[in-house]
Amino acid sequence: MSGSTFGELFRVTNFGESHGPAIGCVIDGCPPGLPLSEADIQPDLDRRRPGTSRHVTQRNEADAVEILSGVYQGQTTGTPICLLIRNTDQRSKDYGNIAQSFRPGHADYTYWHKYGLRDPRGGGRSSARLTAPTVAAGAVAKKWLAAQYGTRIRGCMTAIGDIAIGQDDWSQVGQNPFFAATADAAKLAELEAFMDTLRRAGDSIGARLYVEASGVPVGLGAPLFDKLDADIAYAMMGINAVKGVEIGDGFESARQRGSEHGDELTPQGFLSNHAGGVLGGISTGQDVRVHMAIKPTSSIRVPRQSIDVNGDPATVETFGRHDPCVGIRATPIAEAMLALVLIDHALRHRAQCGDVRVATPDIAHR
Amino acid sequence: MSGSTFGELFRVTNFGESHGPAIGCVIDGCPPGLPLSEADIQPDLDRRRPGTSRHVTQRNEADAVEILSGVYQGQTTGTPICLLIRNTDQRSKDYGNIAQSFRPGHADYTYWHKYGLRDPRGGGRSSARLTAPTVAAGAVAKKWLAAQYGTRIRGCMTAIGDIAIGQDDWSQVGQNPFFAATADAAKLAELEAFMDTLRRAGDSIGARLYVEASGVPVGLGAPLFDKLDADIAYAMMGINAVKGVEIGDGFESARQRGSEHGDELTPQGFLSNHAGGVLGGISTGQDVRVHMAIKPTSSIRVPRQSIDVNGDPATVETFGRHDPCVGIRATPIAEAMLALVLIDHALRHRAQCGDVRVATPDIAHR
Amino acid sequence: MSGSTFGELFRVTNFGESHGPAIGCVIDGCPPGLPLSEADIQPDLDRRRPGTSRHVTQRNEADAVEILSGVYQGQTTGTPICLLIRNTDQRSKDYGNIAQSFRPGHADYTYWHKYGLRDPRGGGRSSARLTAPTVAAGAVAKKWLAAQYGTRIRGCMTAIGDIAIGQDDWSQVGQNPFFAATADAAKLAELEAFMDTLRRAGDSIGARLYVEASGVPVGLGAPLFDKLDADIAYAMMGINAVKGVEIGDGFESARQRGSEHGDELTPQGFLSNHAGGVLGGISTGQDVRVHMAIKPTSSIRVPRQSIDVNGDPATVETFGRHDPCVGIRATPIAEAMLALVLIDHALRHRAQCGDVRVATPDIAHR
Amino acid sequence: MSGSTFGELFRVTNFGESHGPAIGCVIDGCPPGLPLSEADIQPDLDRRRPGTSRHVTQRNEADAVEILSGVYQGQTTGTPICLLIRNTDQRSKDYGNIAQSFRPGHADYTYWHKYGLRDPRGGGRSSARLTAPTVAAGAVAKKWLAAQYGTRIRGCMTAIGDIAIGQDDWSQVGQNPFFAATADAAKLAELEAFMDTLRRAGDSIGARLYVEASGVPVGLGAPLFDKLDADIAYAMMGINAVKGVEIGDGFESARQRGSEHGDELTPQGFLSNHAGGVLGGISTGQDVRVHMAIKPTSSIRVPRQSIDVNGDPATVETFGRHDPCVGIRATPIAEAMLALVLIDHALRHRAQCGDVRVATPDIAHR
Repeated sequence: MSGSTFGELFRVTNFGESHGPAIGCVIDGCPPGLPLSEADIQPDLDRRRPGTSRHVTQRNEADAVEILSGVYQGQTTGTPICLLIRNTDQRSKDYGNIAQSFRPGHADYTYWHKYGLRDPRGGGRSSARLTAPTVAAGAVAKKWLAAQYGTRIRGCMTAIGDIAIGQDDWSQVGQNPFFAATADAAKLAELEAFMDTLRRAGDSIGARLYVEASGVPVGLGAPLFDKLDADIAYAMMGINAVKGVEIGDGFESARQRGSEHGDELTPQGFLSNHAGGVLGGISTGQDVRVHMAIKPTSSIRVPRQSIDVNGDPATVETFGRHDPCVGIRATPIAEAMLALVLIDHALRHRAQCGDVRVATPDIAHR
Repeated sequence: MSGSTFGELFRVTNFGESHGPAIGCVIDGCPPGLPLSEADIQPDLDRRRPGTSRHVTQRNEADAVEILSGVYQGQTTGTPICLLIRNTDQRSKDYGNIAQSFRPGHADYTYWHKYGLRDPRGGGRSSARLTAPTVAAGAVAKKWLAAQYGTRIRGCMTAIGDIAIGQDDWSQVGQNPFFAATADAAKLAELEAFMDTLRRAGDSIGARLYVEASGVPVGLGAPLFDKLDADIAYAMMGINAVKGVEIGDGFESARQRGSEHGDELTPQGFLSNHAGGVLGGISTGQDVRVHMAIKPTSSIRVPRQSIDVNGDPATVETFGRHDPCVGIRATPIAEAMLALVLIDHALRHRAQCGDVRVATPDIAHR
Repeated sequence: MSGSTFGELFRVTNFGESHGPAIGCVIDGCPPGLPLSEADIQPDLDRRRPGTSRHVTQRNEADAVEILSGVYQGQTTGTPICLLIRNTDQRSKDYGNIAQSFRPGHADYTYWHKYGLRDPRGGGRSSARLTAPTVAAGAVAKKWLAAQYGTRIRGCMTAIGDIAIGQDDWSQVGQNPFFAATADAAKLAELEAFMDTLRRAGDSIGARLYVEASGVPVGLGAPLFDKLDADIAYAMMGINAVKGVEIGDGFESARQRGSEHGDELTPQGFLSNHAGGVLGGISTGQDVRVHMAIKPTSSIRVPRQSIDVNGDPATVETFGRHDPCVGIRATPIAEAMLALVLIDHALRHRAQCGDVRVATPDIAHR
Repeated sequence: MSGSTFGELFRVTNFGESHGPAIGCVIDGCPPGLPLSEADIQPDLDRRRPGTSRHVTQRNEADAVEILSGVYQGQTTGTPICLLIRNTDQRSKDYGNIAQSFRPGHADYTYWHKYGLRDPRGGGRSSARLTAPTVAAGAVAKKWLAAQYGTRIRGCMTAIGDIAIGQDDWSQVGQNPFFAATADAAKLAELEAFMDTLRRAGDSIGARLYVEASGVPVGLGAPLFDKLDADIAYAMMGINAVKGVEIGDGFESARQRGSEHGDELTPQGFLSNHAGGVLGGISTGQDVRVHMAIKPTSSIRVPRQSIDVNGDPATVETFGRHDPCVGIRATPIAEAMLALVLIDHALRHRAQCGDVRVATPDIAHR
């Protein structure tokens, strides 16, 4: 692989830069006959879109997706689907000062050394903006998975910095600017206040996310190396700024005994889900459960020591429009990534083993 | 991919079952001209080998590797290298009772549902024994990386259950049965006592590992999706029983501010390494730092509720020879996986960008 | 692979349909630092463009290419290059009548049975129009190969139907409507007359092409299965309507003796080139020589027996705009394909073996 | 790809050298539940085996295959199948003289320049012996295809040098040393005499082969680039010594008119098969028909001009055991390659489009 293609059978090839004319992706391998239009994709893009609250970047992008190929008379034809999103609000002048020096914690330094040159406009290829085509492709995958198996994927923010967020009400995720699955008004107020203070300080903050899939067929994955959980880890760690990934109980598993961790079974289903829906790299039919950690944005106003392209000392302060917490808009991205892993493994399974077996609710206790 | 091949350019295809005639792998894409013999590979296999202390499985396997191809007059020829390890101590009778029911927390259940049949002898393909060929392939990768860039890879255990282990003396890793990088005799005694108690109880325990690479060239990786850290996460989560992976500060990053997390640079190098040697998916030349969590072994003597292949209730107690802490022998596996990721990205980089740039010590402060 | 991506390291993912909004491709893995603009690509597209003579389809398409990504300040950045070509002269009404029946010799029948539906507008995905993005990608590959090794790729028509065309003057290829490498005015007149008669008869005709690369580095390819000649065969047979491919002496080799076929060497170079520049799947540094056969266009006015989508008998006559000899515009396509194979193997070679060795003229006798 | 793996979903990774300890392959992605034992594989290996007549190399190899993994209780388990063939009759002394110079027409020259070293024993990796593992893998593919769709694959020799061989009796293919599908005793005598004369002259000769598959499901393949015929061309051109490949009418198509070439359809099926069972890169359900040309063996006794590794002039005469016509034993190899292409596309089709549609005999007229 040359790096910009995700998946083996439902292949998503991503292209574009933050301030180039357009970004997008090509999906190759989508099953034919899936009803599809831009209206199926736009809602997830809108969830990820910048400018929706004061806590995210103020860049103003419609992120309107256009289907260029692979759909005829409202159905996928089985041929590549090109999804195009035009960039409309580039302000390259904002980034002029960073072209010559490296932001601490940013890809500036590594791109420069890898390629010998870099597109500094809006972070170029390293911008989180490049997750938009992934979200678009994920929407196609979600639709197929839902139609085929009833699979449902959802995610939420579980912490911003030291502020943990409960999961008491999933219906609230779309009702607040933080993708918080809580109806706890005091918590939301605390988050608002914290983010306002942070923004005034010109600093940024890390976050934790949770994403899960229910209605996953049993049998998706492979013994090694393409385990379902390995591919999920690859997918999530591939999201900008992610620094840690857990499946099921994750790091807590390191403290558990086998008699506690192993999920017992009864004829009515599993009695627990420490495994997070994967055993031996293959789905159990239980909910797939994933946690991840997202580092704070590296583009901050706080002055920092660095060097320039000549190796001389430089002080870097990043103005321009940045998310103070990139974790906030990452929930739809993580959902999309999970969808892309699942559809790819569903197709791989169908290739080798024929039609998948959908776990019945009574055996797939969560 | 059909699942059993690791890597794109240094491709390792794994085969075998725990109690079949042999296990092994084929390495395709190894650069020609590397001096190589079995003596380069056997030491890492010996580190992973069963039966080396009372805290690991008592299965007695020499794990002697044989090079079947790809080497002529002591040098790699550039053609596929087949590494074969004969299985010599199978006792399939030990596992007769588990062929009909599913161990909680084990791949028994998912293999059965995926393939419609499974090889129950010693866990078949899901056995941790299948990591031996990976360790062998990793030894080849390590040798090339060391010769080419001076890359050094090492790992250690950082916790067993609730017992945290410090990293005060790397020279001790090979001197105790726990891969502990400590000279703290009291700590080692505590671990010994804990493991003895656990074994008598017929239970198992989770663990935490750390692995790092130094002397990594700057520029390895890709913006998306094949980020160096994404591929590391894939590699590590693909090791049997791993449930969580962190790069650099990992989950701690979720609590940090940008002004704290972003590693500042000076003309003499980086001032810290919160990133763990990767920015924007590409290596910085600093040490690559990875932590992971390993769940407790699922094959335990403690009786557990389960079902049999007919869906009827069954009580499962697993006798036979098992590691009470699979984490113990996982250190050389994690090292091998890291080596395989690095060599693959080194070759990919060389393809696209020409010869890699090795970070000089003064710019790659750790 | 899902089918629409060509190459392993210089990866070209093609998308689009003949009468959709746009066609194009994404090139992933292009080396950074290559000077590139639309002006490098457009000339090859213009050579393939419809409407340039009365002997090709009268569809009027500018085939103007737009670079959407991967280029900054006139240089490739190492990130994906999206090339977009808008369709501007679709007349879907021309094809209304063929949506319900299958043209003999056309992909209509197989698409319908594979996907359960098809986009009939202008042949949809099966249209030769989809070779335009390949030609565009090939222009990028050609430029890199020329800059790196001095590789030159060229092709010509060698026969239309029973009319063989000599290769006496390469400078003429662009001076006549047939890509004929001849200054033989009588031959060109014969071709003109033949094509005019054929067009009036509403029929079509097959053709033979030749394409060659000189200045190819020695050592490109692999012992098996990804031999250089195997990948060339794959590339050429993948061009619409190609039914046969030969390397070097091709089918003539079947009649030769070893003492005749094997190219002798002297310190000054090879004494002949029966091999066509490839031995054991690896380039010799001599010219790579490829011949291919192209079948006659299946969309003809001559009435033919067929069936409709219900399996009932139907008579098919295809009006609309079609090339009476698809071979005519195939020369730039074959050149592009050869360039794509060579660049991919050049990058693969660089990955495994380091920098390639360019054959010196005196050793690479042609 | 690193070159030694064939297929995307039914992946065959080949390893070994002619005079190393063993050769073999790993099949990854085989569907589970296929009854399989060595007895299913050995017959095809025996057809390809050396030493079966005086017209092939006198090397004496049993080519006994051993299944090392992936089969349990007589059925494939869905995990990798390693097939091992030990080399038992190596005589490396025969090749001592060729280690320092390059045989005209042989891979000696290109391996040396690609890798900087080569294994000269018996041709090392470039030996036709390396097709044995492919034949073994092909036998597995054939068995699955036959069981699943009733697909039957067969091949025969159609010419040796200038002696054309008819196809009047397929039952004779296994009854003569030439894989000739003829009962024409005079023709067989002519071939015997020709080969005896050739052998005495120390020379070699080219050949033509034909291979076909019947009972192929409709719908296998992809519009571009992974067309069924493109992958067949890749597969066949990848066989040692093949220099040309034709699908259906092949080069004859270049002389045909569209009104002649396009296969008409009736409700009872196709009326002809000029296409060779593939339209638009996708199978029609008709017989897949492939012709190929094989060059003469390059290892001959006739003295030839060459150079040594220092670039100095050398005269090369190759003694040792070689096939005077490598085409003779190539029929089972071509059959295996065709089977591998078909099973791979069958699995890819199943992934994207669900179960394949088997063409009924009346629609798939041949």
